[in-house]
Amino acid sequence: MSKLNFSISGNSITATRYDGKARQFSLVVDEPEELGGQDIAPNPVEYLLAAYAGCINVVIHLVAKELQVTVSNIKININGDINPGRLLGLSKVDRAGFESLNVDIDLDSDGPKDLIDRLFEQVKDRCPLNDNLSNSTPVNYNIKHLVN
Amino acid sequence: MSKLNFSISGNSITATRYDGKARQFSLVVDEPEELGGQDIAPNPVEYLLAAYAGCINVVIHLVAKELQVTVSNIKININGDINPGRLLGLSKVDRAGFESLNVDIDLDSDGPKDLIDRLFEQVKDRCPLNDNLSNSTPVNYNIKHLVN
Repeated sequence: MSKLNFSISGNSITATRYDGKARQFSLVVDEPEELGGQDIAPNPVEYLLAAYAGCINVVIHLVAKELQVTVSNIKININGDINPGRLLGLSKVDRAGFESLNVDIDLDSDGPKDLIDRLFEQVKDRCPLNDNLSNSTPVNYNIKHLVN
Repeated sequence: MSKLNFSISGNSITATRYDGKARQFSLVVDEPEELGGQDIAPNPVEYLLAAYAGCINVVIHLVAKELQVTVSNIKININGDINPGRLLGLSKVDRAGFESLNVDIDLDSDGPKDLIDRLFEQVKDRCPLNDNLSNSTPVNYNIKHLVN
């Protein structure tokens, strides 16, 4: 099966604001004032949570259709804690990102419990975000530095 | 240091569209038409790339200030390939998410090469998104199923 490439391209506008473009869409990232930003847009980790919630939604519907189970009124809430010590250079012990994530899903369905359990086993296995968060992803940095 | 909690809450609107709220911000996720959506917003993995690029921007500036090096004209582009086989239920071999990510950064700086190398060592170590992508993050699912 041929691979799909996804990309974002953009620029640093301020010390906290990044303006990016993914296909025809503009995405603006900022930080709240207490984290040094101007709070004009969601912050990076909120974008991550939106990505994950949106991904779970897509995969629930995809798998429900295969299992011929109806699903409706789906609420997806995700939250997690970050200890800012490592980000701020105050700790080498804590991890930098979310320590863990809590995914709370409410849904209505005509399916019995065992079918809903199977549905979510498949969702966890097949959701791209669930994979990139649950498992390590190699990252290649390519940095071009112009001396000014 | 006290932990920071970040969250998103929202609902499935269609099989591909999720409308979420993080603090005062609305975040809409959809899929392009070729992936079954109506293409009204970026898709989940594009949100992930925006999160990562925005995070790198914040941490570059934070560390540059500590190292007393000026940085300007920072471009951050990220891309990666996904093999859709696992998402679509056609493969158990390929991973579901990005196989790897390419982070391309161009910047101007008055700092010598070794200082820029130190800067990016710190960025990789302290960026929350770099952590959650490079290392495994535990996820707790809590599913409430109402029979309708």
